[in-house]
Formats: sequence, structure tokens, C-alpha cells
Amino acid sequence: MAPQVQIIGVAGMPEIRPGDDLAALILEAARGQGMDVEDGDVLVVTQKIVSKAEGRLVDLRQVEPSARAQEMAARTGKDARLLEVILRESQRIVRQERGVIICETKHGFVCANAGVDTSNVGGGVVSLLPEKPDESAERIRAVLAERAGVSIAVIISDTFGRPWREGHTNVAIGVAGMSPVKDYVGQTDPHGYVLRVSTMAVADELAAAAELVMEKLSRVPVAIVRGFDYERAEGSARGLIRPRERDLFR
Amino acid sequence: MAPQVQIIGVAGMPEIRPGDDLAALILEAARGQGMDVEDGDVLVVTQKIVSKAEGRLVDLRQVEPSARAQEMAARTGKDARLLEVILRESQRIVRQERGVIICETKHGFVCANAGVDTSNVGGGVVSLLPEKPDESAERIRAVLAERAGVSIAVIISDTFGRPWREGHTNVAIGVAGMSPVKDYVGQTDPHGYVLRVSTMAVADELAAAAELVMEKLSRVPVAIVRGFDYERAEGSARGLIRPRERDLFR
Repeated sequence: MAPQVQIIGVAGMPEIRPGDDLAALILEAARGQGMDVEDGDVLVVTQKIVSKAEGRLVDLRQVEPSARAQEMAARTGKDARLLEVILRESQRIVRQERGVIICETKHGFVCANAGVDTSNVGGGVVSLLPEKPDESAERIRAVLAERAGVSIAVIISDTFGRPWREGHTNVAIGVAGMSPVKDYVGQTDPHGYVLRVSTMAVADELAAAAELVMEKLSRVPVAIVRGFDYERAEGSARGLIRPRERDLFR
Repeated sequence: MAPQVQIIGVAGMPEIRPGDDLAALILEAARGQGMDVEDGDVLVVTQKIVSKAEGRLVDLRQVEPSARAQEMAARTGKDARLLEVILRESQRIVRQERGVIICETKHGFVCANAGVDTSNVGGGVVSLLPEKPDESAERIRAVLAERAGVSIAVIISDTFGRPWREGHTNVAIGVAGMSPVKDYVGQTDPHGYVLRVSTMAVADELAAAAELVMEKLSRVPVAIVRGFDYERAEGSARGLIRPRERDLFR
């Protein structure tokens, strides 16, 4: 039988506010469209609603830019308060050129603006990445697993650019309940050849797949991926971060 | 109604040989598992079977390594004949460090070993990327569209690594019948904010999604993605290559 995977968007979520119980709202929205969370599902949840529920929002009007942020603002024409927030979220600036700021976040992710985002928030407020996205994923996983009585995995996704290729893709920034990678190292192909360097970043591929039903403009912030046979594990997105000393491009 | 996308692996393909009619074999295998190609489907086909059907295979025993390849072999301990093939497929070496050779292929893709691959081929033979992957995709698309009487899109996928993040993901190296990107630039989010930098690389996300049903070891070299609302267009994977002069990491 041919393998088959379904990706189902969860629509009908309300506008998320700080303190909201995301797991409960996701379950309610899923049931509202006549479906339940099932054993073996992978729930992909966009960072934006996680950040909102966790109150990871900053009102730029209350930000006092540092000298470094002001200097960067003078050089780039960008908002010094936004730059200040980006600097606070970064452990290092990887590149700063042509209006693009590529940062290494405190978590170790390399992305534009340290994940600080002005879209889908409103009125001078920006959103930050969740402080501990693995723990965010685990909280949602634990509550849903208990309330729906099933074993599932949860991925927190965000939209990142990448070198060499145009366009953004969704990647995993938080993982709970599954191994973020699938390892073929040491296994043999049908010709008996050993597959030496084949570790697939399945959590990133699941995040990318989920994006196909998450329209940026149509409020589908959650997707259920059903039918994918993942390796159950505690899980963490740290396994997707290449250590700086082994990275040829930092 | 919530958006929903299905990813269905096409199993039961025979071992592909040079000259094989891939489109016919894909249609036969799909029908053999009781399904047809439907209007609006995206077919994701792994590079390996395209390269085999197109005879993009090189027997290393017939390769005469150049002085440059021999010098690289002496320095790295790698097979000089393999290095020769990699050099022939490259327009430029982007990085060469710690046993990794990141190349810019003649097409402009940046990837390890210029896409030259020893796995799933057999006996001293390596596979090269298709010479013109967009044309490979278009040939499959045109034949399938005609024989099944439907309008579809075709993506040729390959497994690439990436900077900063561990693990490989599938990306699109050839595209026909759809725009490889979805552009949100200039559209407004539900708060009325303009989404300034949101071009999603949907062809790469489709390739990644397809990988979820393509087990490297179980001969599922084709997947049908059903239910994704793509923008119909001639299509090309060139739109996914960031021009060198706009790339901060080359």
C-alpha cells in the first residue's frame, strides 16, 4: 500500500491574546470543523499565535533604543526602537547588508531580524519568538494529549529565509513528542550501498508541508499532519541547529 | 471549510533505465495502486529516476581525472575520478572544508558535490543532476497532461543540505506548470499591515512535503500532492535561485 499523508488546516481560531489556553482553543477549533486530534498526529502551530498567547509582544513606543541601535538606525534608516528589540533578541549579528539583518537568536537560530516581526500583530506592537519554543510545544502537546487521550507530536513553526535560494519556507523552531530528524546514516539502499550522509530534517519538512494549508492572510494558524510515521521521542528543535563550529557559513 | 492537502506516494515503479518513458511508468504505477492523476495535482518526482531515465550516469572507471582533481584528491583523500565529475558539473566551488565540497552547479544551484550522487545507482556508477531539470519536468507534465487529459504541475526534487541547520530537506530543482513561489508582497494582513517581505517558496515546500512519503529505502520515487491551490504558469526552478550578486553567503 502506498504511504499517504494528510495535511488539514485548522481554521476558525479566535484572535489570540496573552494568557489564552492555546491547546484548548486548538482542540475547540478542530472539533468545530468536525474533526478530532488523533493518535499519531503531528500538530504544526505557527509561532505567531504561540508568541501572542505567551505575551511575547513589545510595544515599540515603550522601547528606549541603546546607542548601538541608534547608530545602526542612522546607518540603515530603520526604526531605532525596532533595532533595539532585534539586538536584545540576538546573541550575534551574522550579516548586515543591503537592508537585511541576519541574526543568531538567543536560541541559536539564524534568521532575519532575530524573528522580531511586525506583521499580524497590529498598532506599533512587534512579536518576539517564544522564549523556549520546545517548552511551548511541550505544553501544547501535554494538554492536547491528555484532553484528547492520544499520543501526538507538536511543532512550532516559523517562516525563515535561507541563503542561495529565493523565497521563504516554514521551519521548525520548537519540537515536542518526536525526533526532529530521521536518520538513514549507515542504512543501505536497494543496491546495497551505504547511505552515508542522509539525515533528513523531517520536522522542517513537516513545518513546510503545513504551510501549504496555512494561508498567511486567511487565519489558518494550525495544521494537523496525519499519517506520517515519526519516531516518538521527547524531541527538541535544538537538533536542527548546526553548531557554529561545524557551520561553514557563519 | 478548512483547507486540506493530501500527499500520496506512488510505489511499485520498476527500476528505471536510460531511455525509459517516465511519464508512462508513473501513470502505470499510479493506476496500479488504484488512483489516477487528477486535474490540479502536483507530481513530485525525485531527481534520481529522472537522471537514470535521461542516462545522466557516469561510470567512474571511464573517468580520467584532471590535474586539479588529482590535486584535490591528494589533499582530501577522496576519489580523484569522483572529484573530476564534480568539477565538470560545477561552475564554481563555494566552500571546500572538512570533507565537504559545496558547489555552484552549472544550473546555479548551490549544493554538496554539485549533485553528483553515488547512492541508489550501483557499481562504480554515479548519477548527475538532469542537464535541464525544468525541461525534464515539462516533458513529464506534457505527456501526463495529455494521456490523463488533465492540467497538472510537475516538480523534480532533490535532497539538499543547507547552512545553519542540521539535516537535509527536499527542494525543487525543476518546475513545470506552476509558479515556484507564492507572493504576498504588497498584500495586507488581517490588521491592515502590508506584508512586505513574504514570498513563499511553495515549490520547495511541496518537494519537502512529498519527501514525507518518499522513503529513501523503499522505492517511492514519486508523490502526488492533491488539493494545493497553486498559480498555474509555465514555471521554472530558476525563480528559486538567488542571483549571486544578491546573495550574502556566496
